[in-house]
Amino acid sequence: MGQRIDFQTDPSKYRHWRVAYDGAVATLYMDVDENGGLFDGYQLKLNSYDLGVDIELADVVQRMRFEHPEVRCVVLRSGKDRVFCAGANIRMLGGAAHTHKVNFCKFTNETRNTFEAAGAESGQSYICAVKGSCAGGGYELALACDYIILTDDGSSSVSLPEAPLLAVLPGTGGLTRITDKRKVRRDLADVFCSTEEGVRGRRAVEWRLVDEIAPNARFDEIVAARAREFAERSPARAGVEGVQLTPLDRRFGENGAVSYSLVEVQVERAKGVATIVLRAPDEEAPASVAALHAAGANGWALRLARELDDAILHLRLNELELGVIIFKSEGDGPKALAHEAFLLEHRDGDWLAREILLYWKRVLKRIDLTSRSLVALVENGSCFAGLLAEIVFACDRSYMMSGEFEGDKRAPATLALSAGNFGPYRMSNDLTRLQTRFLGEPAAVEAAAARQGEPLDAEAASQLGLVTFAFDDVDWEDEVRIFLEERASFSPDAMTGMEANLRFPGPETMETRIFGRLTAWQNWIFQRPNAVGETGALKRYGSGVRGEFDRRRV
Amino acid sequence: MGQRIDFQTDPSKYRHWRVAYDGAVATLYMDVDENGGLFDGYQLKLNSYDLGVDIELADVVQRMRFEHPEVRCVVLRSGKDRVFCAGANIRMLGGAAHTHKVNFCKFTNETRNTFEAAGAESGQSYICAVKGSCAGGGYELALACDYIILTDDGSSSVSLPEAPLLAVLPGTGGLTRITDKRKVRRDLADVFCSTEEGVRGRRAVEWRLVDEIAPNARFDEIVAARAREFAERSPARAGVEGVQLTPLDRRFGENGAVSYSLVEVQVERAKGVATIVLRAPDEEAPASVAALHAAGANGWALRLARELDDAILHLRLNELELGVIIFKSEGDGPKALAHEAFLLEHRDGDWLAREILLYWKRVLKRIDLTSRSLVALVENGSCFAGLLAEIVFACDRSYMMSGEFEGDKRAPATLALSAGNFGPYRMSNDLTRLQTRFLGEPAAVEAAAARQGEPLDAEAASQLGLVTFAFDDVDWEDEVRIFLEERASFSPDAMTGMEANLRFPGPETMETRIFGRLTAWQNWIFQRPNAVGETGALKRYGSGVRGEFDRRRV
Repeated sequence: MGQRIDFQTDPSKYRHWRVAYDGAVATLYMDVDENGGLFDGYQLKLNSYDLGVDIELADVVQRMRFEHPEVRCVVLRSGKDRVFCAGANIRMLGGAAHTHKVNFCKFTNETRNTFEAAGAESGQSYICAVKGSCAGGGYELALACDYIILTDDGSSSVSLPEAPLLAVLPGTGGLTRITDKRKVRRDLADVFCSTEEGVRGRRAVEWRLVDEIAPNARFDEIVAARAREFAERSPARAGVEGVQLTPLDRRFGENGAVSYSLVEVQVERAKGVATIVLRAPDEEAPASVAALHAAGANGWALRLARELDDAILHLRLNELELGVIIFKSEGDGPKALAHEAFLLEHRDGDWLAREILLYWKRVLKRIDLTSRSLVALVENGSCFAGLLAEIVFACDRSYMMSGEFEGDKRAPATLALSAGNFGPYRMSNDLTRLQTRFLGEPAAVEAAAARQGEPLDAEAASQLGLVTFAFDDVDWEDEVRIFLEERASFSPDAMTGMEANLRFPGPETMETRIFGRLTAWQNWIFQRPNAVGETGALKRYGSGVRGEFDRRRV
Repeated sequence: MGQRIDFQTDPSKYRHWRVAYDGAVATLYMDVDENGGLFDGYQLKLNSYDLGVDIELADVVQRMRFEHPEVRCVVLRSGKDRVFCAGANIRMLGGAAHTHKVNFCKFTNETRNTFEAAGAESGQSYICAVKGSCAGGGYELALACDYIILTDDGSSSVSLPEAPLLAVLPGTGGLTRITDKRKVRRDLADVFCSTEEGVRGRRAVEWRLVDEIAPNARFDEIVAARAREFAERSPARAGVEGVQLTPLDRRFGENGAVSYSLVEVQVERAKGVATIVLRAPDEEAPASVAALHAAGANGWALRLARELDDAILHLRLNELELGVIIFKSEGDGPKALAHEAFLLEHRDGDWLAREILLYWKRVLKRIDLTSRSLVALVENGSCFAGLLAEIVFACDRSYMMSGEFEGDKRAPATLALSAGNFGPYRMSNDLTRLQTRFLGEPAAVEAAAARQGEPLDAEAASQLGLVTFAFDDVDWEDEVRIFLEERASFSPDAMTGMEANLRFPGPETMETRIFGRLTAWQNWIFQRPNAVGETGALKRYGSGVRGEFDRRRV
């Protein structure tokens, strides 16, 4: 798997999905190209999927938000006759490295969450119309939708056969959505999740596994009726015009470097460090909503979000040995604040302003969930203001320059807060990053809020508890170097586990449970000989020989 | 590690702990016998501990609740001069099987939780008085206390060096209590958890790691003063007399069988099944509080709880290949209900009645957290009533006999609910088992509540959703057999992961986070070559050579 995985695509390149747009209703057909796998060694039979299929799906969902704001309901269907979706491709899973399996599950989980976010935040609901077998990851796709209709043809079923069949978990949110979203009774959930053949017909409704069963002959009619109903529940967006998500300006350089228009990724391979430099806008904030729309994907906030998102995904999947990501910024902080302020001002009145902020929310969550040690270096000349400051709070640690630095002519480091730091970019735990940070001292959130808009120097930022450490000219270089060397010397796994636990204190949500509890158990099982050993169920699948298990219970 | 681990002990056998009782204040000294390890191959230096040390600790905490109800504050100290506690013994961890490490962590976690429960539920607060190094599991002991005092002697410190030193996590609640109980700021938590030498003095207070630092010269005086203050916060229990926890009536039989006075453990090794049969009381409920106290540890409810608790722990640690635990019961359901009703009636007025119910709460939680497939067989002649019915709701599934069974002269199967099923035995998620069961249909809890006291036959129990399946004479045997065979054929790991996810829907608490999120990550890391491989940090500890790590981030 040495090739570079690219997260950029567009409809002209899709091999696995197609969309039919019809006013407020879009129909999304999953029609996986058997021979279109991302890697060699497996065929994507029966609408099974790999990361490549999911990259296209994520692109569809994202474009729906920006390019098709008129869509109020998305109907997810199979483009194949006899199967809805067989889930993640088992041969791919059987052959993939642990790192790839885990990263694959994380990305698919993030994509499933965008279904739910589209309904909750933008009034784009998802209906899943199930005909044929809907198994494992296929049913997890359905679970991520707002409503599930199952045809009652005597054979179509929903199932989570991972545990009995493959000795792994339904790890793309399945177990969590069964108990927490659909609230299936736990003993019925136990039966369901250990039944290979799944559940069909009326029992699927009685057990809360689907919302409705439709007589097969009336399936299309009922699906269409529900789609209209869901579309009508969301306020119509008549006459809106979407914004094209044009191709990113991206160049891959020497030795891992990646340049975008506003984002620079630098790599120090020997140190295991990637540095992401973010640039503030050169241009002034849009003068009007019309100007925001005219700028479209070229506008600073949207462009930066897309580039940063791509950079993070690239590092996650293609640069496994870079254990530390440093965030730096440069440019005009007040301009960054002005751009964000414009979006915040118009988020109730303009769908695009709102969508850009919601996208930032998703990108920041993607950072939270990136299992690398994250550190912000708030240096002279930086512009961590508002939404950029939010990245500082997403980091495991932050270091800030304090006072004069010999020979450094850049403006002294400051940090600035905006209204953005107090609401719109909530984490998976549904708290803001500052609320999370100050769980033990809620008054500190108020104290910070009182200083919005002010450029805070290292002393002020330290006093407010906004950065971990501030160092002056004498200590800065050594302290940062020692930290990076030390971090590089630790076990990457211990850091992954530690960070996963420390980043999300406080309340839990379905999302934190999926990424914290379910993912951790899945990761554990993905290491177990009973699943991935030579005689494990995942390895043996399809060989006609069942897995052989070490029967000791852990 | 073939020897049988015994969870029964008493103060006459302690090798690692001693307690000084002084009215409302007890002082608990940790003074681990280096040569008293449970297994060969390691010495318990520097007050490090293994499961044997923790079995004694659990016994101390339990006896404190029953034998010393006058105690209002427990001061936890080291019995050694220069060290508080070095945490779990690293050589023991390095040499132990994965199953043992996981079971060890689970038991120590349960014991830490009993500290917190003693303070919250019984007014027995725990103060940790730290002198000397308090590292890893040692600091996790402190974290489980209600208050931590650290001496300010220039060297005594608290630390969680697991990640940097051993490439594992502080897995006995450390990471969770840091963020959720003590609410340490997440970036400071990151620094703390990656600093081998830990934090001392004023910074430990500022970072919320301890509650107070005391000048070394005044340490004992300040500890004594705080102990008095904490003791005075709880209503005094003057003149109360404890109840002796006499040795259990227990016999180990052939081929894994264990007999207690009220509990029978049967083993079918080829099937991987253990059956626990619980007996209702022969005697009537106590006629008075005096009678309850006179019966003491011989009273039905307390005796059954102790025997069941021991049986569960025995199966967990000594019978790793029994993947399914079947619960059965026999005897007089109404008598069981009467005993429980007596306890419920007196729980506000009598400390012993209250303690017995609180102990049942802990035992039922222990069942919830037992990673075996749990199934209740509600057969003819059974007595699943009130607290015994609660065991049915703790199971992953339940099967109930319905109608006449040929040749079976036992009374037809019924199930009965009591007030106990609606409050006192809350799960780790702080919901009752019925609330958890009916998360999607809260009205079903009300419907069940309306039928308290009534013997419910299979039809009624099914209609109320209280059992998973009811089968008649024709199907019963086959259905149960098929289920057991099927379960035995699944990967034990997949069942562990599945059950850990399905058993605790709904809200999360610190406890569910510790056993769900933190434990899962720890289990994952306990499998990783970076920790436990030949060049891993845990294996190499003490060799003078650092671990070598696969640097790919997962």
